Amino acid sequence: MEVTLRHIADPLGGAVEGDDSVVISGISSLTLAKEGEISFLADPRLRDQLRVTRASAVIVKTRTDLFAGPQVIVPDPYLAYARVAAMFAPAPPRFEGVSERAVIGEGVLLGKGVSVYPFVYVGREAVIDDEVILFPGVYIGDGVHIGEGTVLYPNVSVLRNCIIGRNVIIHAGSVIGSDGFGYARDGDVSVKIPQTGTVQIGDEVEIGANTTIDRASLGATVIERGVKTDNLVQIGHNVVVGEHTIIVAQAGIAGSTRIGRNVIIGPQTGVIDHLEIGDRAMVVGKSGVVKSIPAGAVVSGSPTMPHRLWLRTREHIRRLPDYVERLKKLEKRIKELEQQEKEL
Amino acid sequence: MEVTLRHIADPLGGAVEGDDSVVISGISSLTLAKEGEISFLADPRLRDQLRVTRASAVIVKTRTDLFAGPQVIVPDPYLAYARVAAMFAPAPPRFEGVSERAVIGEGVLLGKGVSVYPFVYVGREAVIDDEVILFPGVYIGDGVHIGEGTVLYPNVSVLRNCIIGRNVIIHAGSVIGSDGFGYARDGDVSVKIPQTGTVQIGDEVEIGANTTIDRASLGATVIERGVKTDNLVQIGHNVVVGEHTIIVAQAGIAGSTRIGRNVIIGPQTGVIDHLEIGDRAMVVGKSGVVKSIPAGAVVSGSPTMPHRLWLRTREHIRRLPDYVERLKKLEKRIKELEQQEKEL
Amino acid sequence: MEVTLRHIADPLGGAVEGDDSVVISGISSLTLAKEGEISFLADPRLRDQLRVTRASAVIVKTRTDLFAGPQVIVPDPYLAYARVAAMFAPAPPRFEGVSERAVIGEGVLLGKGVSVYPFVYVGREAVIDDEVILFPGVYIGDGVHIGEGTVLYPNVSVLRNCIIGRNVIIHAGSVIGSDGFGYARDGDVSVKIPQTGTVQIGDEVEIGANTTIDRASLGATVIERGVKTDNLVQIGHNVVVGEHTIIVAQAGIAGSTRIGRNVIIGPQTGVIDHLEIGDRAMVVGKSGVVKSIPAGAVVSGSPTMPHRLWLRTREHIRRLPDYVERLKKLEKRIKELEQQEKEL
Repeated sequence: MEVTLRHIADPLGGAVEGDDSVVISGISSLTLAKEGEISFLADPRLRDQLRVTRASAVIVKTRTDLFAGPQVIVPDPYLAYARVAAMFAPAPPRFEGVSERAVIGEGVLLGKGVSVYPFVYVGREAVIDDEVILFPGVYIGDGVHIGEGTVLYPNVSVLRNCIIGRNVIIHAGSVIGSDGFGYARDGDVSVKIPQTGTVQIGDEVEIGANTTIDRASLGATVIERGVKTDNLVQIGHNVVVGEHTIIVAQAGIAGSTRIGRNVIIGPQTGVIDHLEIGDRAMVVGKSGVVKSIPAGAVVSGSPTMPHRLWLRTREHIRRLPDYVERLKKLEKRIKELEQQEKEL
Repeated sequence: MEVTLRHIADPLGGAVEGDDSVVISGISSLTLAKEGEISFLADPRLRDQLRVTRASAVIVKTRTDLFAGPQVIVPDPYLAYARVAAMFAPAPPRFEGVSERAVIGEGVLLGKGVSVYPFVYVGREAVIDDEVILFPGVYIGDGVHIGEGTVLYPNVSVLRNCIIGRNVIIHAGSVIGSDGFGYARDGDVSVKIPQTGTVQIGDEVEIGANTTIDRASLGATVIERGVKTDNLVQIGHNVVVGEHTIIVAQAGIAGSTRIGRNVIIGPQTGVIDHLEIGDRAMVVGKSGVVKSIPAGAVVSGSPTMPHRLWLRTREHIRRLPDYVERLKKLEKRIKELEQQEKEL
Repeated sequence: MEVTLRHIADPLGGAVEGDDSVVISGISSLTLAKEGEISFLADPRLRDQLRVTRASAVIVKTRTDLFAGPQVIVPDPYLAYARVAAMFAPAPPRFEGVSERAVIGEGVLLGKGVSVYPFVYVGREAVIDDEVILFPGVYIGDGVHIGEGTVLYPNVSVLRNCIIGRNVIIHAGSVIGSDGFGYARDGDVSVKIPQTGTVQIGDEVEIGANTTIDRASLGATVIERGVKTDNLVQIGHNVVVGEHTIIVAQAGIAGSTRIGRNVIIGPQTGVIDHLEIGDRAMVVGKSGVVKSIPAGAVVSGSPTMPHRLWLRTREHIRRLPDYVERLKKLEKRIKELEQQEKEL
């Protein structure tokens, strides 16, 4: 694809300094960009790369003398990069229609323009809306609903009755609707509690690779609109994740916990069951959350504490050997003082 | 399915207070139950929900005035819930017989009533016992044995010669019998140690989604009867997990460690190699286990310590900034005292 | 396979003490070895097993009187074990040729002796070099290159344009080339940054089961020659992992971090983005790495500190309740001293 700089700048609402008729064929970083590509300065520390980039145009926050070619001025060059890259990014490759090597169960409703690769299995009475792409090895259980424009990458499993919204992306190997981990104990034996609920995933959600989202024991595990999870994330039964929340790699959320909107859960963090994480809270990576977090709080540590406190505390942890030495010295000195006191 | 309350109460050994002929069509929580369903009070804190539930009957530990309808009295309502839910839960959907789109290798023994979905691959000389269900995308290696009534969900891989017991459930995407992680070093180069052992999984085991259990280097990795693992769990080569032990999500057990019976390994916990975890020990979530744990111990922290000690210790960690301030003040005060002492 | 002891000793460069014509049919541990098998003493603590082993020969570092049969003397018996086991280990089972139940896209180049099992999907213009084995459920995206002798176990997904080297092993369920986790924020909404880069995996790499390696946003995520990763490992976009580095189970490496050569990243460790981990560094398990690590350093803790410091620090953490008691006593004693001082 080739477009003029004007065609790139207009949808961004950006002003062009310089020749807006230059033809652009792609976007890349300042160091990787080739002639004909546009680049961007999102991190001011990389400013010097503007001098040496081969890019034919750049997106910047304020006009710069470091780059001689045309410039697009926008308030947020990183966001502009995301939008321009989307213009040039190839769509996922599509299988034309429904492969004869796929299996479509009885009573399935297939929308227009669906792309069903070989070795896809779609269970009875599932609904596959328009423009859905199902890659090889995808399993769709009975009664599942996949919303318009959604892409399931290879070897994704969506189990019975789960509901996936529109324009969702689920990366390879992820499992939606596995049984929640619930048992009653009968003496030493674990008696399985049937997991009869479902998983509901809202529009525009993106789920990373090899992630697992368990179905509810009763009711539904809910992932609301715009949520993004990274790879190898675990979400337990009956969890609710609020709109636009971000869950980074290898984090785990235990059963029935409710996570608010616009929350960030850092990588390798664990959140125990039945908690409330308030809107816009941020949990730093590798934290262990064992009590509810109020809206807007920034916490870290295991168990969590306010992040500012943790930054001080963790420095003190490093210095414990020194503090203990000082404590011992004090004990010695005070003993001497007490001795002198007695002698008086 | 519809049954009378009497048909529900009898197998539980429960006494019925009220009309035992009321017809029941399902079980749900107090807040989700509809008319015609039974519910249960397992957590006394939810007692007030008895007043407002629409359930047609409830299972309780002691008769209550908060609910006007018929009541089933049992010693453990949560266990009763598990048993009643199992009565109503739909069995996994079955493919009738062996799909023509599955591949069955030479010399395979297929039992009665097996359900083999499309896109299942069964390797040479595997044995698939009666009533086994193999979902789409399941891979069964050469020489594998799958016991009666076992269910393998979509995209599960069981590699060569592994032995899976009866009534086992393995959730989607899990891998049984991948190579253990073993290398000898030849200078800078890692030389692979062939992993020629197997994995043996006992009866009634349940394995979560996207979990990995490595084959032994020599001998067998053993998961004994009744063990339950959650999702994204890692079990290394030559590990032994004793009967009825529970391993929660994202925990990892390193090679050759022996875990006893009825142990609980909390989520995101790591256990290093070659340890012994005694029967009925409990390791709290996010722990790092670097030495063996005696039977019955409750431990937490990283590295682990007795849980009671950790509960006190972690509070002190939060207060380190305060303690350090107090230490500094003491140093100042004692210096003053020493000064005064000299002046005397 | 059966060979004489001489045929085993020669490629190891080992001297034989005793009858070098004894016939050997396999290798096992001292306790599991049967007659006709060879065994080895790699861990001196197991020396007493030499007295009771049924092995027909042993590999040792120095000649021992504890074993009466023939002995092979080598400098590193564990490395010798790896090499001898490789002689006896069965090769992965091969499907003869390309299954009619596999799908091979247009323009694909297939080398000699490739083994393509049923239910494999190979996308357009992929290159599959000689002697490659693709197990059932493997997905190869458009434009992927798989090097000679590489084995992809069941249900592995390699997405578009990724490049896999020679003699690579990727265990079941792993995902190579899923999208990196990158978003720009537009108010509350996460705007996806198209991940248009690739993954490049060098020769002799081994990737564990259910591991995920994300494609770069721009450029390539690079796993260099000889790297070994365990199961459930996460490697973010644009990460570079140097030659012969080892990454143990459930560790995670965040975007753009560069890991040197011969590094060891312990299990359940997390490394944040944009760091440099120097050659031969060692990060102990369950660490949280939040700043770059110099070459050769051994670190642990979260956040990391020198491992020796952590060993002392973590002991102090256990004793915090005691130290706090002592601090309180000191405060009391000094108050008394101050009181006496005043009274003087």
